[in-house]
Order: sequence, then structure tokens, then C-alpha cells
Amino acid sequence: MGTLQRFRSVPLKSTFRWSICPQYSTIFTAGNRERSDRAQIQHRCMQSRGLGNIPANPGSAPPRLPFSRVTQDDLSFFTKLLPGRTITDPDLLKSYNIDWLKSVQGHSEVLLRPKTTEEVSQIIKYCNEHNLAVCPQGGNTGLVGGSVPVFDEIILSTSLMNQVINFDSISGILTCQAGCVLENLSQYLEEKDFIMPLDLGAKGSCHIGGNVATNAGGLRLLRYGSLRGTVLGLEVVLADGRVLNCLATLRKDNTGYDLKQLFIGSEGTLGVITAVSILCPRKPKAINVAFLGCSSFQHLLETFQCCKGMLGEILSAFEFLDASCMKLLEKHLKLSNPIRECDFYIVIETAGSNASHDEEKLHNFLEEVMTSSLVTDGTVATEAAKIKALWSLRERVTEALTHDGYTYKYDISLPVEKIYDLVKDMRGHLGDMAKNVVGYGHVGDGNLHLNITSPGKDPTLLAAIEPYVYEWTQKWKGSISAEHGLGLKKRNYIYYSKSSEAVALMGDIKAMLDPKGILNPYKTLPDH
Amino acid sequence: MGTLQRFRSVPLKSTFRWSICPQYSTIFTAGNRERSDRAQIQHRCMQSRGLGNIPANPGSAPPRLPFSRVTQDDLSFFTKLLPGRTITDPDLLKSYNIDWLKSVQGHSEVLLRPKTTEEVSQIIKYCNEHNLAVCPQGGNTGLVGGSVPVFDEIILSTSLMNQVINFDSISGILTCQAGCVLENLSQYLEEKDFIMPLDLGAKGSCHIGGNVATNAGGLRLLRYGSLRGTVLGLEVVLADGRVLNCLATLRKDNTGYDLKQLFIGSEGTLGVITAVSILCPRKPKAINVAFLGCSSFQHLLETFQCCKGMLGEILSAFEFLDASCMKLLEKHLKLSNPIRECDFYIVIETAGSNASHDEEKLHNFLEEVMTSSLVTDGTVATEAAKIKALWSLRERVTEALTHDGYTYKYDISLPVEKIYDLVKDMRGHLGDMAKNVVGYGHVGDGNLHLNITSPGKDPTLLAAIEPYVYEWTQKWKGSISAEHGLGLKKRNYIYYSKSSEAVALMGDIKAMLDPKGILNPYKTLPDH
Repeated sequence: MGTLQRFRSVPLKSTFRWSICPQYSTIFTAGNRERSDRAQIQHRCMQSRGLGNIPANPGSAPPRLPFSRVTQDDLSFFTKLLPGRTITDPDLLKSYNIDWLKSVQGHSEVLLRPKTTEEVSQIIKYCNEHNLAVCPQGGNTGLVGGSVPVFDEIILSTSLMNQVINFDSISGILTCQAGCVLENLSQYLEEKDFIMPLDLGAKGSCHIGGNVATNAGGLRLLRYGSLRGTVLGLEVVLADGRVLNCLATLRKDNTGYDLKQLFIGSEGTLGVITAVSILCPRKPKAINVAFLGCSSFQHLLETFQCCKGMLGEILSAFEFLDASCMKLLEKHLKLSNPIRECDFYIVIETAGSNASHDEEKLHNFLEEVMTSSLVTDGTVATEAAKIKALWSLRERVTEALTHDGYTYKYDISLPVEKIYDLVKDMRGHLGDMAKNVVGYGHVGDGNLHLNITSPGKDPTLLAAIEPYVYEWTQKWKGSISAEHGLGLKKRNYIYYSKSSEAVALMGDIKAMLDPKGILNPYKTLPDH
Repeated sequence: MGTLQRFRSVPLKSTFRWSICPQYSTIFTAGNRERSDRAQIQHRCMQSRGLGNIPANPGSAPPRLPFSRVTQDDLSFFTKLLPGRTITDPDLLKSYNIDWLKSVQGHSEVLLRPKTTEEVSQIIKYCNEHNLAVCPQGGNTGLVGGSVPVFDEIILSTSLMNQVINFDSISGILTCQAGCVLENLSQYLEEKDFIMPLDLGAKGSCHIGGNVATNAGGLRLLRYGSLRGTVLGLEVVLADGRVLNCLATLRKDNTGYDLKQLFIGSEGTLGVITAVSILCPRKPKAINVAFLGCSSFQHLLETFQCCKGMLGEILSAFEFLDASCMKLLEKHLKLSNPIRECDFYIVIETAGSNASHDEEKLHNFLEEVMTSSLVTDGTVATEAAKIKALWSLRERVTEALTHDGYTYKYDISLPVEKIYDLVKDMRGHLGDMAKNVVGYGHVGDGNLHLNITSPGKDPTLLAAIEPYVYEWTQKWKGSISAEHGLGLKKRNYIYYSKSSEAVALMGDIKAMLDPKGILNPYKTLPDH
């Protein structure tokens, strides 16, 4: 293994910046809803399993609902309310109409860029009164088509709502507008010796409001928990324009129902988040990263168990990638494997308040897993550049996949001991049909990113993958969307992870909070 | 200061058992709703502040709502469904009709003790169809009259729903019925080297279902976060008897709205929790407790800041009590102060995976705060008995207060730097009217327990305390119920911490989920 060097306090790992990947190219547009072979097969399978009235082409756009179309009068209202911030230039609208994966293409003709909650309130009130549909948009980095219009919904961008409102350095509670970019908040906090409780690959673009609206997970969830615990308050504009101020900055508050939870993870379908207060941890004084190899997934799981016991409170990430991922990194991105070839690779990060204690814990842990042969090889990062390099082996798998051909992406949550069985079973199930079937993800959270590549779009391959992948997940009581949400593309698959009673109740909540259905229509909830 | 001894791994602190305290004696009963002087003063104050249609006697019972009364036919149905578990003997019903503080007395004539979710479902379905009100009850340890009937509501006790369903030792996820006693779960987990993510004084009696229904906080919140993050799944019987199965055991699941959040902290008013799955942390290998003294609250706050930086990831509790609390402990419980007399006392607990590292961190921290004179004296516990003794100085304050006379109790959440100002201002405001005004609580969570004693019930004193305490809290954007909930006694004070829009939306949710209002009526939401 690589030398276990002395540790020093190092900066946090650098950003993998989000960029447009033209390789993803099934664009779901309103005019592109033909019933493919794949869709027909899938449709029959789902109907036969009693999974509700699932439409023939579950991931693509349903018919347009009878919302009004934007008139000159509407534009006059918006222009008066937001002079210079009511955008109708088709060129300027382009990037707001298409998602990062280039998989969903809307045709909105109006982009509104409010700066204040009051402006958002007036916009939504007007749209509700005039039956105009609205697509709230943050950094537009979502992967399930939730952040772009499906038809001509008015795009309400939070990009100019980017002010920090307050930071309390005693409690570590940050209050800010919804459009603050995650990375900017991280930088702002680092100067004050704090960090954000979440970290994502998309951090350079994504907005905190979008993170909350989609209940983003990411790399720090293992350590700091989900946004349902760290978000302390929200300000939300409801569908009728009323401002719901739940922007508390208290760790404890048991006065009535916790309304903010309704808006966390509801993907902009119940209200528009305009401000967030969030509990931020202290910046760790020491960060260490180990990159290890295992000869089987069973050994990887045993390493995880050992790690939880021996690294305990300083463990901040336990990520994995399989040998196929490593081959793609080497082939497409020319990254080199820093250790001997193995079947599985692990990235372990520790974050603590005492560098020498952390080093000693890590050393003891590595000695244990090497001695017991759970780990066959490994290296430990001591400097910022090497930490960054090790992290990039995990973080750049997504990018490597885009160079391997057309990619079918699945974000699955399962009992941790089952996560790699899905990859193996899928390989067996697909045989030679797929180019590559790879698995990587967040072991600590039981979250597998299953990716299947092929030279091009392949309806037969897709029909073999789906609903197989969803049925497999359902069988093991997993989630068909661990962190990406449902958006447009996965809305009709909800029954694989939620009961019909639960989905019906979600519909009741939507009807209660947005009776005209103007907020982010066609998203999150199934068509029927 | 006390010697800083070598640390060893020690068992977790032992339980302070909940017992009946006859000193609390304002019983709110249905026949006891005369308008007192205090109520009239308070009513005028609240009305003049525009705080909604607050009734004259905000904490006591409203008129009975027009629910049906239990008939012989109803009893026949219940007896057939739950033979031997349908209780009508008035003697047996007594303790279920009165709360732990003996402050709310109901008159229910029927206690039902289901064992299964299916039985709960049938009970609720029947009650909904027959317009019978139901009071779900766990361990009946609540402090705001939420767990007992107000009139003749049928008591649905979860006490026989006490089975562990599953424990996954890889993920640490426990799934169990709602009636499991918290302490039993803790013992069950300890054998498996795990702990519950929450710990309360009432652990010997309280049920996990009640903990979740009231979003209990307690002593470990600082370290493991709130139940909103650690509860992974719930099974709930809705008001019409349908079973909502959201009993997932996944750390991540973004498929639709997170319905379980509706039931966490809603005090049984939206559904009856029948099973819970919860993420449990590994049992720490080392526990240490330090008991320190400060000469001012400012020094205490600076000690807290220093502590967060130097103890970081091993800090598991930062609690305080003031000199008045110590005097009550000495006087009424004959406990002795282990350090020199100070104005403020701190209990710090560390929990970590490496005893010698924890000891070193604690030593460095203590050296820092002693050298800088933030802390004037202190002692550190090394053995189980001493750890227990130190914790009891914090945990037994509640008990000491019960011996000091009639106690007015407030559970307030505030920005941490403000929490003791409320105690000082209240002392100034009350002057000689009160016997003692004391403050203690969870500094780490910004949660103050403000208690005011007097020789007996004193309407004039109460009129001086309320709404002063609520207005003070509102002014600093605090919560008038940090962890106790609203129940019967505080329901009408909700507007001090929540906007009218928020309360209206809560009412809409209640109407949607329980249109006949049969579930725990007269609780949580205000009368108007």
C-alpha cells in the first residue's frame, strides 16, 4: 500500500464543476411522445403488476394541461413588476428551457428573475389568478427533469435571490435567500470557520433553495444527516401568493405541525422556497482521505463495519466504485489507479478536530483491515492536491460514463448489504446487450448509482432494464430514487416505492396547497 | 478543580425514573373552567396584541365538542375485537385519565389496549364511523396535557404494542411497534453495541411512538440531531382507519412527499403511530462527564464556544443549571455541590470511539478554559457512579423544584446568547412575588427550562408571568414550546411562535386528514 504519511490540516477537496454533457440526448419534449416498443413492453409489465394507471410511456411528457397561455397583458404586468428582469428573448431563454442532461426540453417564452420574496409573491398571486403555470428554477442541475418547463410554463428563476440574510457564528445558523449558490455559501462560511452541512458535485451551480426543494443528499449526509434535520426554517410563497414565514432559527420548536417539512423534497410543486435557514457545522480542523481496494463486496462491507467502529465520530464519507468504473476513468479520462487492481475501491474521508488523533485512528483502522486482509491495497492522502486527486476518482465517474456512450442512469437506495447484488444481477440479466454495467455510490447511505452504457439509444436494452430494475428494488423494499427525486422523468414510477394510500395522500396535499395545480405541473406526482 | 483522572470506558448514565409528583396540582377538568382574575388579565393582554381569538382561559379545557358518547353497542364491538383488553373498570382507568403532572384530569370510561396495527385500524375506523373521539396514549409522560382525555374520549393505549420487529446491525436501523418503552429499546440495543439516538428523563415510562408523536428532544439532540432526521419510517393509522405504511428503513428516499414528517410532532392529532423505524448510532466506547462552574453566563457562553471547537465531534451534551437550581438540589434533595459555589454550572458529556483521545481532548479543553479563567472550578467523572452523580445534578432539578412549592414551568427556545436574559428579566419583573425563579436546560440547543415557584397557586403571580414570558419569547423570535409540544395547555399560545398563515395551514391539514376531528381533540391547534 501507499505510505501512511504524517497528516496535516488541509483544505477541503476542490469542486468538480458541473458542465453540459451532450452525450445525454433523449430529449423529452411535448411533441415527442410516440409509443415505443420499450414503452409498450414496460407498460404491459407495470399494468400486470397492478401498479396503478401507469401510462404507456411513463417517463415522457403527458398532454399539456389547460393552463392559460401568456398574453401581452400578462407580459405588461410582469415587465412593470420586474423591469429588465422579465426575459422573453428566445436566445436568452434557451439554457433555462433545457436540463443539464439535455434530456428534457421545454418551450417557455417567459423567464422571470425576482429579487425579493415580495416580488415572488406578486408573481405567483398573479399566475394563480390568471391560471398560468409556473416552473420554479434554481441552478437547473437536477437529473430527473424537475427544474425545466415541460411546455410553456413561466420560468421563475431564483438566480437573483442570492443574498445572505444573516449568519450567527455562535449557533452556526445561516439564513439566506433561496438563490444562493451552494459553493458561494461554502466559501462564505469557510472564512468564518464553518461549512455547509451538504456538499454536491453540482455545488458550483446549484442553489440552496433547489437543494432544499429536492432534499439533496450528497457527500456529507453520512456525517451531518439529511436536510430534514439541518434545515431549521423556510420562507415559502404558496400557490395563491401568500408568504408562509417559517424562517425560524431555532434548533428546537414544537409549536404545532412542522410545515417546512412539506416543502423539503417536494420539488417546487407545493410552494416556492424563497429563503432558508440552516444549521452549519464547524469547519473540521483536519481532513484525511484513504483510497483502498477490496477483493469482494463482502470484504468491502466488513471494512465498512470495521470503519464505523474504529473511525466512529470522525468518519465523514464512505464511498465506493467498482472495477468497471476504474476502467472507464482510466480509458476515458486518463486517470491512473493509485493502487493495485482490485474488484472494488473505497474512498474514506475523516474530518475531525484533532489532526494527530485522527491520524492515529486512521492508522489503527488501516492496520486492522490490512492485517485481516479485508483490504488488499491502499493509499492515504496527506496533501490537498493528493486528496483532490483521490476524490476525483470517485467524483469523476459520472463524467467518465458520459464518454462511454449512451447512459441509462439509476439512483437506488437499498439495504446496504444488497446494493451490489443489483449490479451483479443486472449484468447477468442483460448479458451482452449492454456495453458496461457499473456501480458506484454512497455505501454509508445504502445509495447505489447504477449506470448502464450502450453505443447509442437502444429501446430493446431499455425494455430489458426497466421495469426489471424497479421491480428488483421494490422486492428489497428499496427506493427507486434515493436522492435525485422524481421530477418529470420518474413521476410515474412512484408506486414501486410508495403505497397507493401514500400517493393518494400526496395528491390530497397537492390539491390542498395548489388547487389549480399551477406550481411545477407534470412533476413528482404520477399522471393518475 | 477536581482531579483530572484517567478515563475508562463506562456504562451510560443511569435513569432518572419518572414518578408522580403530587405538588403539581392545578387540575384542568371539564367542570373547572371559571374565569379567574389571571385569565381575564391575560385574555385582555392577548386580545389587545391581535393574537387571534384567544379564549379567556387559554390553557384550560374548551367546551366539549359534539362527539357521540360510548354506548353498550360500542362496548360490545370493542370487547369482541379486544377481549380482555377493553377496560371499563374506573379504578383501572384512573391513572390513564390523569397526566404525570396531575394537571389534566379526563373522564374517559373506556381504555382500549390493541396489540396489532390491524386492531388499531379497526378501532379507529369504527370510531370515525360512529363519531367517537379518541385519545391515543403512550407512556403518558407528557407535560402539556396532550396524552390524556379532556372529556370522555376513548383512550387508545399503545402499551401492549411493545414488540421489536427487526434490528439490522449493519445499518443500525431498528424497527419496532409504537408502544416499546424507550429504556427497553436502549437496553435491547446496548447488547448489540448500539444506542437510541434520543435519551430523556422519562425513558423508563415513555413509548417510542409517543416520543415520535411529540418530536421529543432530550439529552442527545446536540449530537445525533432531531427525530426528523433519525426517524426513517412510520406506520400510521389514519382517522378513517386506513393504514399508511411509510415504514421504510432507508437513509435516503426521495420518491414523493415525505408523509411521515406530518405525524412527527403532531401529538396524535393527525394519525395514530403504530410502528417506527429509526437510525441508531453505535454505542460510544468512551463516555466522560465534566462538571464545571462559571462566574457569569457570558463566561458560560464563551466556554460553550471553546468547547465546540476543542471537543468538536465527541461533544454529546452541554447542559447548564444556575446557582438557584443548585440551592434547591442541596436544600430539597440533600445533594452536595461537588465544586466551589458559582453562579452557573455546566455538565459536559463526551462520547467517542477512543478513550485516550477523548481524555486528551477534554484535558486540553479544560486547561484552556481554566487558564483563561472562563471556568472557575470543575471536576471530571471517571467512574460510572460519579458520572451518574454528576448527571443527577442536572437531571434532578425538575424533582427538586417539585419540593419547592407550586411550580410554573416554561420550556423556551431562544438564540443561545439570549436564554439567560429571560431568567434575569423575569426575576426583575416579578420582584418579591415569586419564591424562586430558576433557569436550567440545554445550552447546546438554545433550550431554556424556566421555572418559577411560589408557596401555592397564585393567580396574581401567574398574571404577572403570562403573557410576559410569551411576549418576551416572541420578541426574540423564540419558541414558546421548544420540546414539550402544545397539547391541551399551550394550544392557544401558538400564535406567539407561529404566524396566522401557518396556523391556518395547520388547520387545513387537520381538516384534510381528520375531517371529523376525532383524533386527540382539543390538542395542539388553537380553539379558533
